[in-house]
Amino acid sequence: MSLYQDSVVQMSIMLRGLEGCIDKAITFAEAKECSPDDFVGFRLAPDMRPFAFQVQAACDTAKFAGSRLAGVEAPAFEDTEKTIPELQARIRKTLAFLETLDEGQFAGAAEREIALSFLPGKATTGAHYLREFAQPNFYFHLTTAYNLLRSAGVNVGKRDYLTHMTLHDLES
Amino acid sequence: MSLYQDSVVQMSIMLRGLEGCIDKAITFAEAKECSPDDFVGFRLAPDMRPFAFQVQAACDTAKFAGSRLAGVEAPAFEDTEKTIPELQARIRKTLAFLETLDEGQFAGAAEREIALSFLPGKATTGAHYLREFAQPNFYFHLTTAYNLLRSAGVNVGKRDYLTHMTLHDLES
Repeated sequence: MSLYQDSVVQMSIMLRGLEGCIDKAITFAEAKECSPDDFVGFRLAPDMRPFAFQVQAACDTAKFAGSRLAGVEAPAFEDTEKTIPELQARIRKTLAFLETLDEGQFAGAAEREIALSFLPGKATTGAHYLREFAQPNFYFHLTTAYNLLRSAGVNVGKRDYLTHMTLHDLES
Repeated sequence: MSLYQDSVVQMSIMLRGLEGCIDKAITFAEAKECSPDDFVGFRLAPDMRPFAFQVQAACDTAKFAGSRLAGVEAPAFEDTEKTIPELQARIRKTLAFLETLDEGQFAGAAEREIALSFLPGKATTGAHYLREFAQPNFYFHLTTAYNLLRSAGVNVGKRDYLTHMTLHDLES
């Protein structure tokens, strides 16, 4: 298993899937003659974070997974997006950062010590960080963004979430 | 990275977290003097699958991830659950099956050919199967189950979802 593939490559695939879901939300809003930006503040529950936050959190989890495992500084992206085009730009700049990372930077990443700002004085290893925090957190926010659009009536389905599988012809 | 840790161990941690969320849903229903079983058919959107399906799908994705990567037959569990205690039993028997798997059975799992019943004639490798299908699908259904309870008012938070991190004292 490759931590580069498990973080940068797979999370980029999923973020491009989120771009496709947002494209469908824009088409939906146009057909309903309302603004796509109405989705930005939409929530599944009054005490849950809105769509904009779910996109920001998915992007940041991918960004930090890549940067922490590669041992490089992550660019700071402020959480100021208030429109769908701004959220699309957030995804694009996250993808652009992930593209700057090289698989070679991930040598030894499984054993690398990862400090976590929300747990002062504590750390974990790269393998545990990816498996126990970055992956579940990334998929949590991505799925919540998808569920928000779906529950608002946007025509997204499982194929808009699972967009890619590496396949070959069955041998056996 | 270990495919055993990434599938059996991590998915078992997350399923035990789902058990904790269901315990909170039971407490919530008791306080409201309604039946916990009312959650079973609850949906985020009219054309989305209900809570019972989300639990069944999370359980089956974990079961098949473990069995396919270990190269053993998975026990068949019928999707007949109609009550919360039945869904709790489904999670428990999934966890019990995962506990029968041994890390040694996962040697060579990354390169093992995995056939997929929903893609006849096609296959993928164990590493791609876990990364591109099992993990995103597992977290999708787990998060949707969580979102269903949360949107119904159950007092679940991120700590009921991310229940475990392997930590050590920061060295640097």
